[in-house]
Amino acid sequence: MAPTTQVQERKLDSNYAVTKALKCNPVLSENKISIRGLVGGLLKKSNPGKQLISLGVGDAAAYPCFRKGHEFASEAIAAVGASAQFDCYPPSHGCPAARRAVADYLSIGVTIPGITVRETDVFMMSGGTQAIQVCIAVLARQHSRSNLLLPRPGFAPYEAACELFGVEPRYYDLVPQCGWEVDLAQVRNLTDSETVGLVIITPNNPCGVVYSVAHQLQIAETARDLGLPVIADEVYGHMVFGSNKFVPMISYAHVAPIITIGALSKRWMVPGWHLGWLAFTDPNGALKKIRAATEALMNVTAGPASIVQATVPRILSDPHQEFHRNVIRLLESSADMVYQRISKIETFYCPSRPQGSMFMMVELNTKALSGIRDDMEFATELIKEESILIIPGSVLGLKNWVRIFFGVPIELLNEACDRIESFCKRRQLKANGMI
Amino acid sequence: MAPTTQVQERKLDSNYAVTKALKCNPVLSENKISIRGLVGGLLKKSNPGKQLISLGVGDAAAYPCFRKGHEFASEAIAAVGASAQFDCYPPSHGCPAARRAVADYLSIGVTIPGITVRETDVFMMSGGTQAIQVCIAVLARQHSRSNLLLPRPGFAPYEAACELFGVEPRYYDLVPQCGWEVDLAQVRNLTDSETVGLVIITPNNPCGVVYSVAHQLQIAETARDLGLPVIADEVYGHMVFGSNKFVPMISYAHVAPIITIGALSKRWMVPGWHLGWLAFTDPNGALKKIRAATEALMNVTAGPASIVQATVPRILSDPHQEFHRNVIRLLESSADMVYQRISKIETFYCPSRPQGSMFMMVELNTKALSGIRDDMEFATELIKEESILIIPGSVLGLKNWVRIFFGVPIELLNEACDRIESFCKRRQLKANGMI
Ligand SMILES: Cc1ncc(COP(=O)(O)O)c(C=O)c1O
Ligand SMILES: Cc1ncc(COP(=O)(O)O)c(C=O)c1O
Repeated sequence: MAPTTQVQERKLDSNYAVTKALKCNPVLSENKISIRGLVGGLLKKSNPGKQLISLGVGDAAAYPCFRKGHEFASEAIAAVGASAQFDCYPPSHGCPAARRAVADYLSIGVTIPGITVRETDVFMMSGGTQAIQVCIAVLARQHSRSNLLLPRPGFAPYEAACELFGVEPRYYDLVPQCGWEVDLAQVRNLTDSETVGLVIITPNNPCGVVYSVAHQLQIAETARDLGLPVIADEVYGHMVFGSNKFVPMISYAHVAPIITIGALSKRWMVPGWHLGWLAFTDPNGALKKIRAATEALMNVTAGPASIVQATVPRILSDPHQEFHRNVIRLLESSADMVYQRISKIETFYCPSRPQGSMFMMVELNTKALSGIRDDMEFATELIKEESILIIPGSVLGLKNWVRIFFGVPIELLNEACDRIESFCKRRQLKANGMI
Repeated sequence: MAPTTQVQERKLDSNYAVTKALKCNPVLSENKISIRGLVGGLLKKSNPGKQLISLGVGDAAAYPCFRKGHEFASEAIAAVGASAQFDCYPPSHGCPAARRAVADYLSIGVTIPGITVRETDVFMMSGGTQAIQVCIAVLARQHSRSNLLLPRPGFAPYEAACELFGVEPRYYDLVPQCGWEVDLAQVRNLTDSETVGLVIITPNNPCGVVYSVAHQLQIAETARDLGLPVIADEVYGHMVFGSNKFVPMISYAHVAPIITIGALSKRWMVPGWHLGWLAFTDPNGALKKIRAATEALMNVTAGPASIVQATVPRILSDPHQEFHRNVIRLLESSADMVYQRISKIETFYCPSRPQGSMFMMVELNTKALSGIRDDMEFATELIKEESILIIPGSVLGLKNWVRIFFGVPIELLNEACDRIESFCKRRQLKANGMI
């Protein structure tokens, strides 16, 4: 193992220790590892002799192939900008037309009597990221030490927001052997009187699973039994492959109240626009206080830019079928390809083919790899030798797994697989004393 | 007094009581009064027979007269949008070109040796509002019960951010008899070992004062003596009238470390774009941890939209002199006019003519006004009868004063003064038993 890696390793270990020991706000400690911070560090290590291929941060918008038929977006923002009609402060809770467009969009295909999303149920947010922060900020204050149920592996900003607002994150497992379904028994065990919600992400980052309607119903029923709202992160809504169906969680709002987190970012390939939403579907009014707190918080918080909000009615009112079809087709081929190739690599274990989103999780057999003690070291060595960036599972709560983002053009992904394969082979031969 | 007002009054009183009693987070309580929330309530009461004139929220961008020569803004955003080059996630701390442009802009005219603002000193924020929240979030965690020195009267989102992040706001007075200068003796008295910073706003919202260089130096020296950073809110930077000069607070960074809060919102008439910044000018490295905490927090928080950030180099690199000159000329005439007219109204006391920003504070003689017990009732009755919106000083910490926003076309402002005058006259005559 190279000396830099040892240093890096020690640094990471001690950082974790510091984080645990301080018990104060580790998000705000300079030692806290966020995906963004980690990626920054890893990128600096890449092999200057090889072109970098990032299977790290989930941004497919950089690649022209995912932008076929995407002109509607640039046309919308250019028209809004040129009009000079949207420079004033937007209303705190969002522009009415944008809220209405999101409400209509969320209501599509929901046929349960009495379940609708109204304009006033929707709050416009600065990306899914702000939706997460605001949701956790308002849930936080219900108890002196509120706790929130989060999936493991998960999406790190949830944990960060918990730390920021003094909420204890409690992790339930997504079970690889059961197609990454929620361990509902564990959810029940973890819940106590200070639990404020159950977060689920479907289509899922990082596992690529799309929950079946049967599992969604089980989740809603569990939440109902426990008296919890379901926070349904649908940032990858509709991004599903083959025979998988996306059914919005509000289809179960008659069972348990649903707080939906969504965004234009992924499906519409505009993550930089920072346009998201938080929507309450709460037919029995159980979330009245939470909703009022959201209103109050947004009165003193900046939501998304007015000019971006002004594009929302235009963007959401058209199905843009050709555009979406192309994206799904590309993602699906990428997912299939990477699944097949990764499955064949001996030192990996890949429990299931992705059903949606842009991510999959792969387990490492570190024992079979020379000089690789864990996922963090795997990511570091891989980028140093092969200029391939992947996210170590540790930052998502799953040690010795890695997350692979497959929203990249298939030729690049193929090249990335070649390099990952040859890296693993080299390390495996070395482990076996063959080289 | 009309029955609705009594109800309103009781409601407000009990809300204040609730807020005080709970001691939990009142920002997130549905009863908390924010300016935005209050304005929403007041607007519903306006007289349907009279055209509404808002001297409330500080948004001049709605009026064409303030937008002469403003095409550069719509052209910039339209070009950025049409290019389709800025849809990806921006870097967490801001786009390098935007950070550099802000750093250069902040450095203009600063001639103290060793004082410069570098690209990495600047963090792009979703408006001045996010800059306030992030700044307070990172300052918060230094002590178990950090406190922050805030001006009274002040800008309500500071208080809101303190509540959100568990910081105790401690108010020092801006003294009307001394041209709204900072009561520095009080600043010294309020400071203890858990004080994390001194917030000053110049040009000032809500008082319209622009601090002299002598007073700025006194502020910096006081901060140095107390070991505090100065948080300099310069959202109204350069918006000064007549012989008043805007000298950025970083001109005193050799005395005490400065955290600058700024935004395109006011000076460039694009408040809805939500483009602000937080900049550290810290030649001795006293704020190293705070800066690192800002980096960490922004790694998990959405900053301003990529497409808006992309316009910043273009907007800041040109002085746009004609545009700014027109805005200042209009604001200055408005300020003079409203000062003169308001000063002549017997039931008002207006300590000084505004020197900059878009606001002034006026004291009410409630005793001379029939049916007006306080500023809240004044605002309510005024909008009900005259459709004029002003902000009651209570929400800014100064009871029985009101804030007047003068960034409206002069004819409208004149009309507003007519109506305010006749309202006050009626209430005065009634108080004297004359009608
Ligand atoms: C599951 C999940 N939720 C929320 C977000 C944040 O959305 P946004 O990029 O719109 O802030 C992401 C982004 O990667 C995500 O993967
Ligand atoms: C003193 C002061 N600081 C900060 C802000 C917030 O700036 P922005 O509108 O860019 O969020 C304002 C806005 O009114 C302000 O008056």
